[in-house]
Parts: sequence; C-alpha cells; structure tokens
Amino acid sequence: MSSTTPELDLSEKMESILADARRCFTAFGYEGATVRRLEEATGKSRGAIFHHFRDKETLFLTLAREDAIRQADLVADEGLIEVMRDLLAHPERHDWLSTRLEISKMLRTDSGFRARWEAHQAVLDSAVRTRLVTLSQDGRIRDDVDPAIIHLFLETLLDGLITRLASGGSVDGLDAMLDLAENAIRKQS
Amino acid sequence: MSSTTPELDLSEKMESILADARRCFTAFGYEGATVRRLEEATGKSRGAIFHHFRDKETLFLTLAREDAIRQADLVADEGLIEVMRDLLAHPERHDWLSTRLEISKMLRTDSGFRARWEAHQAVLDSAVRTRLVTLSQDGRIRDDVDPAIIHLFLETLLDGLITRLASGGSVDGLDAMLDLAENAIRKQS
Repeated sequence: MSSTTPELDLSEKMESILADARRCFTAFGYEGATVRRLEEATGKSRGAIFHHFRDKETLFLTLAREDAIRQADLVADEGLIEVMRDLLAHPERHDWLSTRLEISKMLRTDSGFRARWEAHQAVLDSAVRTRLVTLSQDGRIRDDVDPAIIHLFLETLLDGLITRLASGGSVDGLDAMLDLAENAIRKQS
Repeated sequence: MSSTTPELDLSEKMESILADARRCFTAFGYEGATVRRLEEATGKSRGAIFHHFRDKETLFLTLAREDAIRQADLVADEGLIEVMRDLLAHPERHDWLSTRLEISKMLRTDSGFRARWEAHQAVLDSAVRTRLVTLSQDGRIRDDVDPAIIHLFLETLLDGLITRLASGGSVDGLDAMLDLAENAIRKQS
C-alpha cells in the first residue's frame, strides 16, 4: 500500500462481513442481495450487520471504496491503464463488476446516492489527477491535450472495459487494445 | 438511409407499438417494464402486442435493432466516433441507454439471449468492419495496428460513453475526449 493512499480502518469483524457481503452482491446483484440473503451470507443477524454498516447502501459503498483504494494504489505506482490490465487478469472479479452497471440508474436518479458514490471514489480520482500531473511534468504524456481530457479518456475506457467484462464479453485482443490506448496518451514524437 | 443498410420491414401498427414500448422501457427499465405497463403504454392488450412481437424480449431486441440500424447507417457515412458524437447531442435518449447496462447480466448468464442480441447487433458490427477496411485501404487510419484492435478500441469507448451517459454523468469535455480518440486511430505522420 503506497503511503499516499489512505486505508480503511476496519475491525476484523467488519472485514469479515464485507468479504461475505461482496460474495452476496456478486452472486445476486445489488437489488438481489436482500437483507435476508446478506444475513445468510454473513451468518449474522441484520442487527449485527447494520450495527457496523448503517444500511445496505453503506455496505455496498464501503466495498466500492475498498476497490477504489486498491486501484488508487495501483494508479500511483503504474497508472490507470494498469488498473485495466489488472481487471483483465482477474476474471474471478468480473461478476462483481456487474453491480457497477446495476447502480447506474441510482447514480442518475438519486442525487444523494450519487454524492456518496463520488465521495467514495474521490481517492481514485485524486490519484489519477496526481499521476497525470507527474507524467506531464516529466514529459511522459502528450502536452497538446488538457490532462483533464486525458483523464476523461481513461475513465471512459475503464467504464467500457467494465461493461464488457461484466457482460461476459471475450477478453481476446483487449491487451492489445490497451496498448493502443496507452500509445494514444503518450508524448507523440 | 444508406443503401448498404437493411431496413426493418414493419407495419405502421408495429412501429407505433415499438415507439410506445421504447418510452415504457425508458421510464421503467427492462425489468420494470412489466407486461401490464407495456399494455398501458401502448394502449393495447397483451394479446395484441404479442401477436406482433413474440414476447417482451423480442420487443426489446427489435428496439435495439432499430438503434443498430440507425447507427450502422451513420457508421457507413461517418464512422463510429460520429455515432458517439450523435449520442452526446441527444440527451433525451440517455435514459433509454440505461437499459443497455441493465441487460449486461442477461448477456453474461443467458447464452440464448446473448446469441439473439449479437444477431440483432450484427448489422452495426459489420458496418464498422467495412468502414475500417475502407479507411485502411485509403491510408486514413494507422496501419501499424490490426483493424480488429481498432474496432475493439472504438467499441469499448462507446460502451464507456453509454455507461457515463446512462449514469447521468457530465458531458463536459466529452467532445474533446472523442477528438483524442479519433486522433489515436488516425494514421500517425
């Protein structure tokens, strides 16, 4: 874990609930992971679960923040394209990714949820911005395009990759596709 | 409509059912558009609706094919990046896009649905392949990357754009982001 990335400060019991909840969301989706199923998956009563996490939404957002922290750490060392390569390399995580698509409607229609989601993703957002500034200063990415646009490009590509993997699409060629994307933001000689 | 793109051959009654069903799917999502709601939206009985379209899945896939045909037509004339710019220019269609994310789980878990979906999207896929061959022959796209990889790149970016728009994300900077993408596949001088 890089020193720039904050860690979640969780008890062992909370870690264990989170791991079980992640399996439950992965298997049934966000909507499908009912409180009853979360109880079964964690082996704990709703009282015990929601003593640690205010509600199902908080449980889910905490899992999303776990991901964001891990990704921010990888971004700091190797960049957002590497986060995408890491996704490709872990097919066992692809089912979980479909929850990201499932919440898109909530993001659009529920401004409270959107604000909480963005707060939980801020660590990743900030890591990408810092990385792009550093690369730009070192002359390692193109200087004829606003870093904010490069950020948007990488983010959109990541969203597209998530959609593809969550839909069970083939991974053939995706590594070469990422080479092309990497080349697109590199300083053109 | 370009001469290379097949049209759907539908009666006026079918067109009218489709337009109403699209509004219903847009408002309630794929799951949420129950048969009762489809009846209300179309002003027709389930018997009348399913006389024309075998079932709800067929209704939805026919709408997806309408989109694919319109997009294939634009691809033939101006390319897939232009399809993305067209999406940006029509915010009133963004709510409909969220059905695309909603079906990702079905695509992954229901191979029959996936096969039907791919058949309905084939017209767009084929238009993109044809376009890339032409551009490649005319020396207008880079020749150091397999056209299949460029295709994958554009498709992934389109999926990412759909996710962003369906999630109600800001469109600021997306046009400049598409300029960057367009530049990435152009023949490097």
